[in-house]
Amino acid sequence: MTIKKTSGEKSHKIKEEDKEQRADLALDDIDHIAIPVTEADLDKTVDYYLQNFNCQTLYRDESWAFLRFNNIKLAFVVPGQHPPHLAFISARAEEFGQLKTHRDGTRSVYISDPSENTIEIMAPLES
Amino acid sequence: MTIKKTSGEKSHKIKEEDKEQRADLALDDIDHIAIPVTEADLDKTVDYYLQNFNCQTLYRDESWAFLRFNNIKLAFVVPGQHPPHLAFISARAEEFGQLKTHRDGTRSVYISDPSENTIEIMAPLES
Repeated sequence: MTIKKTSGEKSHKIKEEDKEQRADLALDDIDHIAIPVTEADLDKTVDYYLQNFNCQTLYRDESWAFLRFNNIKLAFVVPGQHPPHLAFISARAEEFGQLKTHRDGTRSVYISDPSENTIEIMAPLES
Repeated sequence: MTIKKTSGEKSHKIKEEDKEQRADLALDDIDHIAIPVTEADLDKTVDYYLQNFNCQTLYRDESWAFLRFNNIKLAFVVPGQHPPHLAFISARAEEFGQLKTHRDGTRSVYISDPSENTIEIMAPLES
């Protein structure tokens, strides 16, 4: 998976002194996981998870779905929409690139890790 | 991603009456996410997550790594080891197939969802 880097991106390596200051902070959360499905398989795949696990539907239409598990949310994405990805919540989200505000009020940027896995960096909702 | 089904697998669709009984139960947890890296990129990819997020190293060698985030664990898997997957904890794990006991004491089975995403179903540790 590869995504184009936005012009707003800059180096976001955390300095050693910052890491030490953060040692006592809470660990970061992963907000959601988005796994790939084909449009033809979306319905039966979402049904499979609803039937086999104790989870709740947060959103569902013909183009994507979003389920709540106890500790994390699981999205199902079809080709042409957002790519499969992991979404991390970081107080330093702005350091990863220009944040975009989404319809649900969240602010995030999509980048890729050194292995070309797509990751979304979300600002905490309270910031 | 495709995996061979084991002979111990059987239908595990949950009956409607069971779903109603489970309505008040806690939602299931996703124990960990395993994302793909090449062996050549493993070190720099793990370093990237450690430098950019507040997370802890649970395990790391030349063939895989395991990081703890606040709400979930993140594994990095290279080709030839476990495939990229999501690991769910389910009290009904046995219904998904023959569980295998791993070196760390966890018991699980690997299957695939209807979109051929590999998923691991883990028994709760206390069972």
